[in-house]
Formats: sequence, structure tokens, C-alpha cells
Amino acid sequence: MPGSWVGSKGGPSELGKLTSARGGRRWLQRPALRLDITTPGGHSLGMAKASELRRMPKRTYEARVPRLRAALVQMQVALQHAPFPVILVIAGDEASGKGDVVNVLNGWLDPRGVETIAFHEPTDEERERPTMWRYWRSLPPRGRLAIYAGGWHADALADDPRTPREMSEFDAGLRRLAHFEGLLADDGALIVKIWLRLSETEQRARLQELEADESTAWRVSRDDWKRNRDYRRLDLLASRMRRTTQSASAPWHVIPAADPRTRNVQVAELLLREFRTHVRSATRLPGRTAPAAVRALRPAGLRRLNALRLDQHLSESDYEAKRDKWLGRLNGAVREAAAQGRSIVWVFEGWDAAGKGGAIRRLTSAIDARDCRVIPVAKPTDEEKAHHYLWRFWRHVPRAGRVTVYDRSWYGRVLVERIEGFCSEAEWRRAYAELSDFEEQLTGHGIIVLKFWLHLSKEEQLRRFRHREETEYKRHKMNSEDWRNRRKWEEYEIAVGDMLALTSQRHAPWHLVAANNKRFARLEILKVSCEQIAAALGGD
Amino acid sequence: MPGSWVGSKGGPSELGKLTSARGGRRWLQRPALRLDITTPGGHSLGMAKASELRRMPKRTYEARVPRLRAALVQMQVALQHAPFPVILVIAGDEASGKGDVVNVLNGWLDPRGVETIAFHEPTDEERERPTMWRYWRSLPPRGRLAIYAGGWHADALADDPRTPREMSEFDAGLRRLAHFEGLLADDGALIVKIWLRLSETEQRARLQELEADESTAWRVSRDDWKRNRDYRRLDLLASRMRRTTQSASAPWHVIPAADPRTRNVQVAELLLREFRTHVRSATRLPGRTAPAAVRALRPAGLRRLNALRLDQHLSESDYEAKRDKWLGRLNGAVREAAAQGRSIVWVFEGWDAAGKGGAIRRLTSAIDARDCRVIPVAKPTDEEKAHHYLWRFWRHVPRAGRVTVYDRSWYGRVLVERIEGFCSEAEWRRAYAELSDFEEQLTGHGIIVLKFWLHLSKEEQLRRFRHREETEYKRHKMNSEDWRNRRKWEEYEIAVGDMLALTSQRHAPWHLVAANNKRFARLEILKVSCEQIAAALGGD
Repeated sequence: MPGSWVGSKGGPSELGKLTSARGGRRWLQRPALRLDITTPGGHSLGMAKASELRRMPKRTYEARVPRLRAALVQMQVALQHAPFPVILVIAGDEASGKGDVVNVLNGWLDPRGVETIAFHEPTDEERERPTMWRYWRSLPPRGRLAIYAGGWHADALADDPRTPREMSEFDAGLRRLAHFEGLLADDGALIVKIWLRLSETEQRARLQELEADESTAWRVSRDDWKRNRDYRRLDLLASRMRRTTQSASAPWHVIPAADPRTRNVQVAELLLREFRTHVRSATRLPGRTAPAAVRALRPAGLRRLNALRLDQHLSESDYEAKRDKWLGRLNGAVREAAAQGRSIVWVFEGWDAAGKGGAIRRLTSAIDARDCRVIPVAKPTDEEKAHHYLWRFWRHVPRAGRVTVYDRSWYGRVLVERIEGFCSEAEWRRAYAELSDFEEQLTGHGIIVLKFWLHLSKEEQLRRFRHREETEYKRHKMNSEDWRNRRKWEEYEIAVGDMLALTSQRHAPWHLVAANNKRFARLEILKVSCEQIAAALGGD
Repeated sequence: MPGSWVGSKGGPSELGKLTSARGGRRWLQRPALRLDITTPGGHSLGMAKASELRRMPKRTYEARVPRLRAALVQMQVALQHAPFPVILVIAGDEASGKGDVVNVLNGWLDPRGVETIAFHEPTDEERERPTMWRYWRSLPPRGRLAIYAGGWHADALADDPRTPREMSEFDAGLRRLAHFEGLLADDGALIVKIWLRLSETEQRARLQELEADESTAWRVSRDDWKRNRDYRRLDLLASRMRRTTQSASAPWHVIPAADPRTRNVQVAELLLREFRTHVRSATRLPGRTAPAAVRALRPAGLRRLNALRLDQHLSESDYEAKRDKWLGRLNGAVREAAAQGRSIVWVFEGWDAAGKGGAIRRLTSAIDARDCRVIPVAKPTDEEKAHHYLWRFWRHVPRAGRVTVYDRSWYGRVLVERIEGFCSEAEWRRAYAELSDFEEQLTGHGIIVLKFWLHLSKEEQLRRFRHREETEYKRHKMNSEDWRNRRKWEEYEIAVGDMLALTSQRHAPWHLVAANNKRFARLEILKVSCEQIAAALGGD
């Protein structure tokens, strides 16, 4: 029942108007002009040439605008309670009026529900993180609309690739953008991408027009004229960009921009229509679903888990003899990484009471605390819940040369969320690829990713639970959830196995640690970390 | 009842141990060494010279550490449910082991509840905002501990002032820091500031010791030796810093640092003791209190409000004739400000239905939407609620050359929060100075602050409420709160009057706008904005 997420203010009546065709006609003006939507390939073939379109008379425009504005504001009221954000990209040819359209929309919409985002030159905080970081941090929460002036696509086009090598980098970057949009769309976001189109002649006419008017002449630079002379090449590039970032869930809409009034009306009508369609298909807010029986996707992972020798042991004297040596090495390795501007991300997962906290304490004692953050991953905050599940992890990606330790991590998606039904089967199934891709972006940026699964026998966990309950200052660590998770041990084993099998990548492999003996586990983590950091640094 | 905010996990039993002296003795080791706390002036007079202290034998240290660690972790458990954050500053003389102490504490504490913050060179995102912005954004939420390595004080000392002029700037900066700490302390934060102290001889010995060991030799630079030769001057400077940032709620604690073991134990014990004392005095989580009868603090404000002529009117034709001219001027003024790297902050306050939304829409239509954000101020998110009430406004302070429009603002503190008892009387009373100070920091950084109160007669509001209820697409704007606020009209008038009288400053005056006629109000806002921006730019 898609209407169930509609709250009290604004109420179901407005949504009814949006969702029912009958009501919709009452306030949504039927598009009078055919919207030229690109073919699946993103080509502008079949598009009526903008110059052929008749100009919209001022009177017609002024008669239509009030109803459009009312409809847009109604849309915003409905959006407030919607389980998805709206991402509106306004991109287009030079001088096609992208900025004007953004301003017009901002004037028509209630500014309280909209945010306009434009990417200027990356700041140093942005440059020190993977490319996508600044796009992630800009994303609107559910129930909000963000207008992207130029979008992430403008960044890609600004690279202006020419050589075959640059071209293939360009394509790779675009595929990454397409993937990003796919992620957001899968999470329910409505993505409306608009390309404002001018022909070469129209562009020239528009530039002349801007130059002739004193109040707009400053907007035309020599570069603009250069781009007009270079129209054909840039047009091919833009069309290649649209083709590569084209998808069913985030298609490009090419709108002729020669007549500003027609352009403005078409943009608004397209947004309204897309919103109306999306509302119909949008599902409820993510909530708990009945989890299905847990069956292994990749039994090899479970076999790997069960093959781990848990009886590995280290005596206290052995441990003390070796610990300081490895702590010293780790300190050196982390400093060497920092000197090279390389960041390190540690991921700790493991059974309850497997000793993650102690291992992290030991590890971080060798690192300059000023450059190190430990992120305990527990229940998300409400700001985090209103975003894509990866948003809260992107937030904490370290700057160049810094360290982030995640105590539990994004893998919650395929562990607790899978077992407890906090997300749907489709969601956790596709998460394996999403998580691997996230880590690939980290390692691709030079971040060293170290992932540990602390493994325990069921008997050892019981012993530790009992010990915690008996020890006064450890009692706070236990709660009923721990016992409940324990009862689902076998299901978790399967989920862990799948995680190992499906997300162990060359650049970010899973390290299984036998944790029945804490000393052995801690030393093992130190050793593996040193080796992996050295290998990553040596590999450059 | 200070125990009432203790949640289920960790539970009242731990807190009992922290708060009751009897229980406390069971796990909090009584400090064996006298802690040398500075005199109110921040002088280190009366401090035992570190060299006179006997070194703590390794055996004693190792016997004490486990109990200290247990106590620290217990403290963290209690802190999780506490209504305040803990800000621990570890500053000190060169080579006094600030980094070591931070690392040791991080090793002893459960890293899941701590964050270590060190201020490196400001990033460009930081440089483009008022100095305090980076400190504000680093603040921990309630229930969390942040360790500041060097604190904001290290930034101040790094300026290394020498001339009288630099000295007076140094002092001014320090007073700002003291004020900042006062704000946080008033909000309940526990602030523990530690200065690790080495005498000139001890410092020399320590540098030699570090240089002699291959694994630490890299930590000693030529600058360190230079600072040792310059010890007397730097010592005076540090002591001046401590004196100026000394206060009852955020005093400096000077700890001799010559013996690392004694130093570590003293730091941990001091933190524990301060926490225990603070818990006893901490009040409940901020919640609704019974509001007192509303009486004017400054009747002059109310008189100014009532003196405003509300019958000012503009005909539609007059409005249309003038509007575009002023929109054009505003566009020019905002671009000119941006060209000079000056940001603009608009603050809109006013009665319900006074037309804030429409005025903002008109205003922003003249500004490039790519550089402009509208922040609607409604209920804070849970992350925002866990911070000082100003934190959510600091978050959105614009970068150089950008625009932020606040639709309602920090003045909620002295309006709705005062009237509805969302904060205590002491809180809203001191807010007038806090808000003025916040704006002073903005204007001091070159940000242009424009504040508007949209004034309405009670009759006109009623007319608009009825109109909204009768107009289908406006109905969503009305709810029961609007009617409730209206019943408190006279109380709000008094609060508005006090706000006008107490927060109108030369650099950020209140502009009263007669809003019974929307056209008049909108044009007035455009005019005043243009004039004020021009004045601010001309004044440079």
C-alpha cells in the first residue's frame, strides 16, 4: 500500500491526487508539448530540432506557470512523507540556460524542501578521498529534493578527453557514475536527468543575445565561443556521456532549450510526471520483513570457515616476547603509509565476544591517536537512516594518510540485516556486489583495506558469555540480543560463509583469525596487518 | 535526580558506584599523588617541580594500571547515558609526551566511545569560515568522550606572537576560546584541560633521551631544540594562555610530565575524579520545563515593535514596476560580494503566515541557485539534539562567497523555546549574549548578516489562516500548532520585543518589516538587503 507512508500534514488527500489519474488531472496540467525522451541508447535521434519548435507566447506561459507552481508545491508536500529522495540533474550544452532553469525551479518550488548542489573545484578535503566521496556527501535524505546543477556529469565532461587513453578513462569514469546512479535507484531514489539541448546555430545565437545585453554580457567568456567553434566534437562527447550513463532507472531526458519558456515548462512537467510515476511504484519505507530460511549461496565460504583450526594457541610468555616487536613494526608501517599519503581502513567483524574490542585496543595503541579514528557501528542515527545504507560509511572515509578502524561495518548488511530481515532478500543479495564495489573505490584511491573475521567456537563463546555475566565490570557488555544471536549461530555461520566467498577480493581479502585464544588472535592481526601494509606499499 | 538518565545497559548500578563515595572507593583508586592544580589565575605557582617528584617504579605502575583501566571503562559505560559530552584537552610543553598520553589513554579506554581530535593545518573548507567553525564541527555529542590532542590552544600558541600588536591579537583570540569553552560548559559539557609540564632542564633531558633511541629519534626536530633554547619566552606565553583561558568551569590542570608513569597515572586519575564530580552536579537531559509567566526584559523592544506602521501598502502596478529593478540590483550586489569572497547570511523570522516563504522565494530568484542554500529550521534531528543548540547552525555557515538563507533560525531559542519552556529560564536568558556573539563571529569573518522580522497584525494573521484553510493547495501549511501559537500572541510579542532590544547589533541589526501587505514587505526586504550589502562592501 504505497499510501501508507503519508503522514498527517499534507495528508493522504494530496497523495491521492498525485497517484490517481482522475485527481491528478485536477491540478497536474497535461503536457501540451511532446517531451522528447531519448532512446534507450541515449541518442538524441528522433528529437525534433529545437529550432523547429514554435516559441511559446508570453501570454501562454504566464497562464500556465501558476498551475505548474501549484503542482510543484503539491509535489513537495507529498514528497515530505515519501520513502525516497528526488535527484534532479540539470545538465546541458553551453549557454542552454542550465543556471536559469535551476533558478526558475528554485523560484517555483518552496525553497524549504529543495537544495541546489553544484560541484565547484574539489576542495582539498575532497581531493584526498575517492572521487565519489563528494557526490555521496551531497546526497539528499529521503523526502527531500536536490537539484544538481550540472550534476556529476559536468565534472566528467570538464576533463575534456581527447587521446584514446583519455577516452577510455572517460568511459571508465562514466561507468562508475552509472553504477552510482544504479545504486541510488535500487535504493528507491527518483533520478531525473535532463540534458538541455541547443544546436550549433542556436548556441551561437544565444551567445550573441547574451553579449548584446549589458546585464548578461559578463556571462559570455572567450571559452564559450571556443566551445561553440568546437561544437561537433563536444556534442559527440556529450552524447557518448549520455549513452554510457543511460539506464532504465536513470534515463536521460533531452529537452530542446532554444525557447526558454518552452524549456522551463517542459522541465517542470517532466519532473511532475516522473514523480507521479515513481510514487505509484514506490514501496513502503524500509522496514523489517519476515526473513526467509537461510541457505548458503556459496557453500565454499562455509567450508573455508569450518576449515579454520581454532585450537591455535599462544602462551603468555610467547605473546609478550613477540608483541612489542610487532607493535613496533606496525607503527613503522603506518607511518610509512602516511608518509606516502596512503590511508588505512581496518574492518573488524566477528562473533559476539570474539574479542574485537581488545584487538582494536591493542592495534590502535601502536598508532598515533591523532591520526586514527575508531568508528563503532551500531544502530544508525536518524540522519543515517534517511540515506542509502552506505552513506554512513562513506561519511567516515579517512583523509590522505589517516586511519579509520570500523568496529563492525558495512557487512552488517549481509549478516544481521540478512538474518533478522532488516532488509529485503533482493537488498542483501545485491549488497555483495555493492560492498565489493565500495571497497574497490577505496583501494582504487590508494586506501589500504584490511578485513578481519574473528572466529570462535560455539563453546568458547558460551564460556565467555558466562564469564562476562559473572564479572562485574564486564556485565555491561552483555544483553539479551547476544543470547538471541547465539541461538541463530548456524544461520549466522551460513551468512558469514557467503560473505567470505562473495566479498573476498584481491585488493581487499578477508583474513580469518582463530580467536579462541585471545593472545594468538591479537598477534595474528598485528602480523597480517604489517604484512599487508608492506605488500600494499611495496606494490607501488 | 541525577541518576534518571541512566539507561538499561550499564545500568544504575555502575552509576551508583560513580556517584556514591562508598561505592566509588571500590573501583576508583584514591589518588596517591597530590594533583597539582593551578591557582585560579592559571599560574603554575605552588606546583611541585617535576624533578623533585620521585619516579614511579615500574612495579607500582603495573599494579595500578589494571584498576585504572577498569575504572576508565566503567566511566565510559556511565558516560554513554550521561546528558553531557566530555572534552579532554591534552596540551603541554614541547616533548612533554602529549602524544604518548593520548595513545596511552586510547589504549586504556574502550575505543568505541572515544574520539581523538587533532587540528592539523586548516583545510580550505575551514579557512573559508570563521576560526571557530572547525572547533564546532569537531565537538562530540552528549554521552561521548573526545580527546583533543593539543586542543584549540595549540593553534593559538602556534601563532607565536612577539610584537605588542600580535600579543593583543593573541589575547583576543584566547578570550574567544575562553568564551567558547564557557558556552560548552554552560551547556553541561565536562571540560578537562591538562597542561603537561616540563622544566627547561627536563625538556633538554627528554629531547636527548628521544634522540638517543633509534626508534624515537625521528620525533626530534631542529625546531624542538630551538624551542628548548627559547624555553623562558615560550613558558611565559603558555602561562599567559592558561591564565586567559582559565575559568571555574574549564580550569587548567598542570601536571608534571618528567616521569611518564606518574604523568599517565595522574592524567587518568584526574579525568576520573573530574567525571565523578561532574556526574554529581549534572542535571537531567534537557527537556521541557514549566515556562514562567512571560515578562519583558527590555520594554523598549516591544515599544519598537508596536511603533511599526503596519498599514504600509504597495499597489500591484507599483510593485511590478519596481520589483525587477531591485531584483537586478540584488543580483549585482550578491555577485559583487562573491567576487570579494564575502558570504551572505539571511535570517528570516516572523509570525506564522507572515510570508517568510514567499519573501525567500522572491529573494533567491535573484541569486544564482548554485551558490545559495535555504535552510528551513524545524525540529532538530537526533544528531543535532545531541549537541549544543548552536551546533546545527554552525554546520551550515557558508563558505567564502556563498549564500545561506535561514528560514527561522537560532532565534528560536529566545522565541518558541522561551515561550514553550523547551529550555530553562537560565538558558534562554543567556542566549541573547550567545546569539549576538555567534553573529559577531560571522561578521568578524566578513560574512554579511541580514536579519528580518516580518511583522503582522493579529487580524491579518487570522485572515490568512482562514484563507489557508479555505484554499486547497495551501491547507498543508496549517496545523494545530499555528492556532496554539496564535493564542499566545501577547507572550510572543514580548519575546520578540526582547529579542529586538537585546540582539540588534551594529553589524547585525534587526530590520522590522511591515508585512500586512505582501508586496510592500517583499520590496522592502529587497531594498534593505541591497542597501545593507552595499554598505558592508563599501565599508571595506
